[in-house]
Amino acid sequence: MANIKVGLLDFPKVSQQPVEIVERKGTGHPDTICDALGEELSIALSKLYREECGAIMHHNVDKALLIGGIAEPKFGGGSIISPIEIYLTGRAINEINGKRLPVEELAIETAHRWLKENIPNLDITNHIIIHPKLKPGSKDLVELFERFQLKGEIPLANDTSFGVGHAPFDDVETIVYEVERTLNSKEFKKDHPYVGEDIKVMGVRNGDNIRITIAMAFVDKYVKNVKDYLEKKEIISNYAYSIAQKLTDRHVDIFLNTADDPENESVYITVTGTSAEAGDDGQIGRGNRVNGLITPYRPMSLEAAAGKNPVSHIGKIYNTAATDMAERIVAEIEEVEEVYVYLVSQIGKPITEPQVCDVKLRLNTDVKGIEEEVRKIAQEEIDNLPDTWQKFLERKFRLY
Amino acid sequence: MANIKVGLLDFPKVSQQPVEIVERKGTGHPDTICDALGEELSIALSKLYREECGAIMHHNVDKALLIGGIAEPKFGGGSIISPIEIYLTGRAINEINGKRLPVEELAIETAHRWLKENIPNLDITNHIIIHPKLKPGSKDLVELFERFQLKGEIPLANDTSFGVGHAPFDDVETIVYEVERTLNSKEFKKDHPYVGEDIKVMGVRNGDNIRITIAMAFVDKYVKNVKDYLEKKEIISNYAYSIAQKLTDRHVDIFLNTADDPENESVYITVTGTSAEAGDDGQIGRGNRVNGLITPYRPMSLEAAAGKNPVSHIGKIYNTAATDMAERIVAEIEEVEEVYVYLVSQIGKPITEPQVCDVKLRLNTDVKGIEEEVRKIAQEEIDNLPDTWQKFLERKFRLY
Amino acid sequence: MANIKVGLLDFPKVSQQPVEIVERKGTGHPDTICDALGEELSIALSKLYREECGAIMHHNVDKALLIGGIAEPKFGGGSIISPIEIYLTGRAINEINGKRLPVEELAIETAHRWLKENIPNLDITNHIIIHPKLKPGSKDLVELFERFQLKGEIPLANDTSFGVGHAPFDDVETIVYEVERTLNSKEFKKDHPYVGEDIKVMGVRNGDNIRITIAMAFVDKYVKNVKDYLEKKEIISNYAYSIAQKLTDRHVDIFLNTADDPENESVYITVTGTSAEAGDDGQIGRGNRVNGLITPYRPMSLEAAAGKNPVSHIGKIYNTAATDMAERIVAEIEEVEEVYVYLVSQIGKPITEPQVCDVKLRLNTDVKGIEEEVRKIAQEEIDNLPDTWQKFLERKFRLY
Amino acid sequence: MANIKVGLLDFPKVSQQPVEIVERKGTGHPDTICDALGEELSIALSKLYREECGAIMHHNVDKALLIGGIAEPKFGGGSIISPIEIYLTGRAINEINGKRLPVEELAIETAHRWLKENIPNLDITNHIIIHPKLKPGSKDLVELFERFQLKGEIPLANDTSFGVGHAPFDDVETIVYEVERTLNSKEFKKDHPYVGEDIKVMGVRNGDNIRITIAMAFVDKYVKNVKDYLEKKEIISNYAYSIAQKLTDRHVDIFLNTADDPENESVYITVTGTSAEAGDDGQIGRGNRVNGLITPYRPMSLEAAAGKNPVSHIGKIYNTAATDMAERIVAEIEEVEEVYVYLVSQIGKPITEPQVCDVKLRLNTDVKGIEEEVRKIAQEEIDNLPDTWQKFLERKFRLY
Repeated sequence: MANIKVGLLDFPKVSQQPVEIVERKGTGHPDTICDALGEELSIALSKLYREECGAIMHHNVDKALLIGGIAEPKFGGGSIISPIEIYLTGRAINEINGKRLPVEELAIETAHRWLKENIPNLDITNHIIIHPKLKPGSKDLVELFERFQLKGEIPLANDTSFGVGHAPFDDVETIVYEVERTLNSKEFKKDHPYVGEDIKVMGVRNGDNIRITIAMAFVDKYVKNVKDYLEKKEIISNYAYSIAQKLTDRHVDIFLNTADDPENESVYITVTGTSAEAGDDGQIGRGNRVNGLITPYRPMSLEAAAGKNPVSHIGKIYNTAATDMAERIVAEIEEVEEVYVYLVSQIGKPITEPQVCDVKLRLNTDVKGIEEEVRKIAQEEIDNLPDTWQKFLERKFRLY
Repeated sequence: MANIKVGLLDFPKVSQQPVEIVERKGTGHPDTICDALGEELSIALSKLYREECGAIMHHNVDKALLIGGIAEPKFGGGSIISPIEIYLTGRAINEINGKRLPVEELAIETAHRWLKENIPNLDITNHIIIHPKLKPGSKDLVELFERFQLKGEIPLANDTSFGVGHAPFDDVETIVYEVERTLNSKEFKKDHPYVGEDIKVMGVRNGDNIRITIAMAFVDKYVKNVKDYLEKKEIISNYAYSIAQKLTDRHVDIFLNTADDPENESVYITVTGTSAEAGDDGQIGRGNRVNGLITPYRPMSLEAAAGKNPVSHIGKIYNTAATDMAERIVAEIEEVEEVYVYLVSQIGKPITEPQVCDVKLRLNTDVKGIEEEVRKIAQEEIDNLPDTWQKFLERKFRLY
Repeated sequence: MANIKVGLLDFPKVSQQPVEIVERKGTGHPDTICDALGEELSIALSKLYREECGAIMHHNVDKALLIGGIAEPKFGGGSIISPIEIYLTGRAINEINGKRLPVEELAIETAHRWLKENIPNLDITNHIIIHPKLKPGSKDLVELFERFQLKGEIPLANDTSFGVGHAPFDDVETIVYEVERTLNSKEFKKDHPYVGEDIKVMGVRNGDNIRITIAMAFVDKYVKNVKDYLEKKEIISNYAYSIAQKLTDRHVDIFLNTADDPENESVYITVTGTSAEAGDDGQIGRGNRVNGLITPYRPMSLEAAAGKNPVSHIGKIYNTAATDMAERIVAEIEEVEEVYVYLVSQIGKPITEPQVCDVKLRLNTDVKGIEEEVRKIAQEEIDNLPDTWQKFLERKFRLY
Repeated sequence: MANIKVGLLDFPKVSQQPVEIVERKGTGHPDTICDALGEELSIALSKLYREECGAIMHHNVDKALLIGGIAEPKFGGGSIISPIEIYLTGRAINEINGKRLPVEELAIETAHRWLKENIPNLDITNHIIIHPKLKPGSKDLVELFERFQLKGEIPLANDTSFGVGHAPFDDVETIVYEVERTLNSKEFKKDHPYVGEDIKVMGVRNGDNIRITIAMAFVDKYVKNVKDYLEKKEIISNYAYSIAQKLTDRHVDIFLNTADDPENESVYITVTGTSAEAGDDGQIGRGNRVNGLITPYRPMSLEAAAGKNPVSHIGKIYNTAATDMAERIVAEIEEVEEVYVYLVSQIGKPITEPQVCDVKLRLNTDVKGIEEEVRKIAQEEIDNLPDTWQKFLERKFRLY
């Protein structure tokens, strides 16, 4: 039995505190691109290793650097002057039983595939250079990994670290998340091809006033001129407002591309739909947490989940597990209004034996009645940790 | 007058909650190296710009990537097989009034200087490659910058963002911080040259038991053999214990290099004093917050402060200001036991006009009596924000 | 009038000397790829400059480095482990009248286009990385260039250098050239898709015995097994023999892929058709001379023509001019059996005023009767030098 | 017995032909720097391999690319804006018997050492970045190599290729060579520290007039102003003249830095002594041949000798052997005025069994009397080929 503590949240709800800040960096934000490429590479490596030897071998590709290009967007379609460059870094076993594995090619092909699918206005052949910089990693780690993966034993925590999650989202969190997800959905883009993928949404609540500030890259070839831009901007603002106001009773204001200076034709258009084309750099782990948001008024882990191996890396699997656990508890136990979950590992111990699993509840009832239920869900989630890797391979978590 | 709210902390002290986690990545940790090089470059650029045109021009060098090398440490002195590589990325104006500025050379020289001073066993000529990848940045930003820097007006916030700080450190925080600082002090190294700079300290408190886990790279040439290693390890453990136990009344255990397997001669030795020599990668912004710690049980900003411009970048100056403000309030007002400060900016507004400055206090008295005092300190700190850049240039903040 | 000297070749024909060596590196050879990419980039830049300002501006992109990848070819189709990387280096003006020009993107797109067309089994998106490393060049050169290009004056020689050419090809030269050209022709490939583009032909004549040694990369996906390989090899050998024996009366032997060791399944197959996929590196200027051959028994310039600017670079235009002149003289003056032409420039003098144009003839008549005719052709060719750039843009020279 | 042919040179001496061109790129020329670094790396690898396993293992590091930096020289001492970058490329075994060898570090350290010694005004830590890009090479080659190196058998020719040499130097050749060697000698520099290492000497003879054109980089910190520059230029011109006129009876003119425009303060000064600091790129194999010169009126091999393995690479060892053989024949046989030697290999045959060794003599006597003597020297040189590698390791050849 894991060391599960069940207690109560002993402070007012964030949504009732005077100020709240929530942010989401959308699909085409340079940091999100880095997260996505790191995670996709981890998935691709995991599948490759499983094909080659039946197990996920050691890898950790959680460092990446995107160096912005130089672009000259213009109404009707501009051009790229210098390409974007992305360095994909980390450790990955590149040889099994004397057979050399194509880990660098995998990195390149995986990155291109994701970019083609997700940033469709980016010419993946000519406008971006992928630099795979993978090294085999230290032998000790590799051996440890083989031992547990191939023998089916429970993986050992790679570190003393922790994960954290909460549920449910409050109104500002939901708005920020949904606005980006909707504007970046394939359905919406069908009718609004001028909407680029680089959409950053910041929600700041002051008392009962919610300001939603959106920075959204337009795709230049779908915009004729400043007038057309301003009309389309109006459409998007209104649409975002319609999403937001359904999700809260509070007053909402939408601010879209506030730095625009239309009189000087200085507006936020791009060739590719991402600011990465022109100067904005990115890294893994600097964007959204595993629940898809940045929430400074909630507990957060600094760990980058993207790119880490899904078998034993606490910084990855404890964060998603804590989030999953919180969501299940809220979903399955009616009396629970809100949950925070902290999971703390012990380096070298099985991942199913955390130092502590700290569950804090906000209830509309007494804790006694439901403690057992909570504990049961927590234990189930912990017991399932050795199989979590499957969910990563099936992309069942938001992760970024 | 800024929008300053003064309220009360409405939850139990972290140090009285059942679990607490605190971490510090020391000077030689790959993430810390990246932070340091980004920040040193920002300082060097600021000085260069001031020499050239009397003002700090636009720059933002807050992205860096360290790609670990390959090394073969051995007792008595090993060798480097492949060098460490560091990419220093970002925006920096490279021309003023038609004069080309040596920003790339500055990046290389600044990095080498810091490394020579701080990682003395690293051969800066042969064991590390610095890749400066700086671009001039978008013109709009540059113009905005010139406008305010050169005319002496109050800089405008570059973003809607926020900073956060707390004071004072509790016992676990103090221990984690002091253990690393002491082991990495020049005085301590004089007698213990075998202590490398890559020292990661993790403190986990469970009730009244504090486990301090230290991963510390030994420098191989100062260690004769396993026996010698174990003896020196014992010395360091004891020393760390002596530091820690003075700083708390709780039970402390020290765990140093727990992954060692001395029977197989597998212990944590390095040629250079940093794990960057052999596989550990790093990035800016993935390590310590501006107070020098990673504290998941405290509010944290995800922003990397290191490398950002010190004039208008909220992600930098609001974090240090919030920390400073918290420390001053605790220091100057006896009745205050603990403070949390949140500072939220409005993009495009003067940095001295935050959306809100949210100060939360834990008091041994009634808030009425001291609210005015708190407000006065807060306002002073806010008023001083336009001069904060000087403190960065003088390295007056911990920052990482 | 140029300083044209007309004399006689005072030594026996190379084809009658006891030994002769001739080499040609085919389209897919790493050195030829570098030459082609450099030259295509020069053409693309020239066109861009003409569009932007009506004149070809200064550029010199005659340095390139191809770093071979890692591949695992196998019968039926293998895979690429690590990509090929190509650095394209040199000087190219990247700004005209304040307008930034996309020279880096041009380098990438031009390279991809040539590779797609010429190495069709190479996946240009995933199996090759193009690194453009172009710098604007020194201001003095740029100004000099503008002066002459924009004002229509005759360009000045950029260097004291020389060019050399001869005509006609003898039998060994013709065989070496034709064998590669035929095997690499689109028509031949239609029926023989297994023929890769990396075809190196070496002809060594010992008295009346000509050994034609061919190293030809097979494309693995079109070859089933060793047996199939050997059958196809037989086809190619026979075909090469049939080409060669039509072009000489001497005894010819064909040696194809002599390093094969079929018993150990070690044969020359590739995934992409070029050895660049697996270790063979390349550079500009290390392959064929401007007549398409390497002929150590003939005078040769070491200059790389590929990538140099076509307006004033002596190392480029004097070599093609000397070759053209030699070919015209042989073609138009029946009495001339063979010609060697040397053109020597004077730095800073108009390109139409060489220090000397040294024409050496082998005649079946007396020199007196035809000297005037030779001189006339030479003078015409020299007079046309200022327009030579057009021929480069139309790819009228072999060049590599 | 090798197939040695002894014949006569059947054309007039080059020095009696109307035109002659000779060039030498000095120590600090970007192409020469590349040659030197490639060759020094080959030597360092050879020594490493011999230490590790008693034999020189397969390597071929004959491709390199120098990308010029950006500099702002000025009288009294200027500054570097962007560093020089050098890519060192090729194949080198990096593991012997499971032991990883530091080939990349060796490349970096060797390059730095040579640069420090030979380009003393270059700051090797901050002004140049060495990128080692070495791959292990194909297994087949490696195995072949092991077989012959470790068993002491005679190495097999790696290619069908050839080498060529001639002796003695004529007057123009001697002048070009000696002028550079003297100006770049340590003794001369003691009194003339303003003389940079990038000295390119071109000799063009028209009948009895020899023009020696020298492009020589001055080191800016040792030159006060234009006046000082012009005075020092005068000194060097006179000195070069004094060297030249002792070596010929012909008329000599010296032209030093002819592109200077002193009225506009546009003169050839550099921070580091090499034009590589500001835009001039370089490659291996584009500069001097193994005799230290570029001599288009003599037979030349296009092969780069520098960086190739000294055991079996025909492009290296046959060129030095042909040159040595020619020099010995002229030195030891009084009747021989001039010799050209061609050595043609057969791939896969022992290096001591060339297809042909073609020795062509210019005599002041009848060939009969001395043919045997010539043949004997030639055979000795061929017999000694398996030991040639020692001379490369001892740097006994000019090579570039």
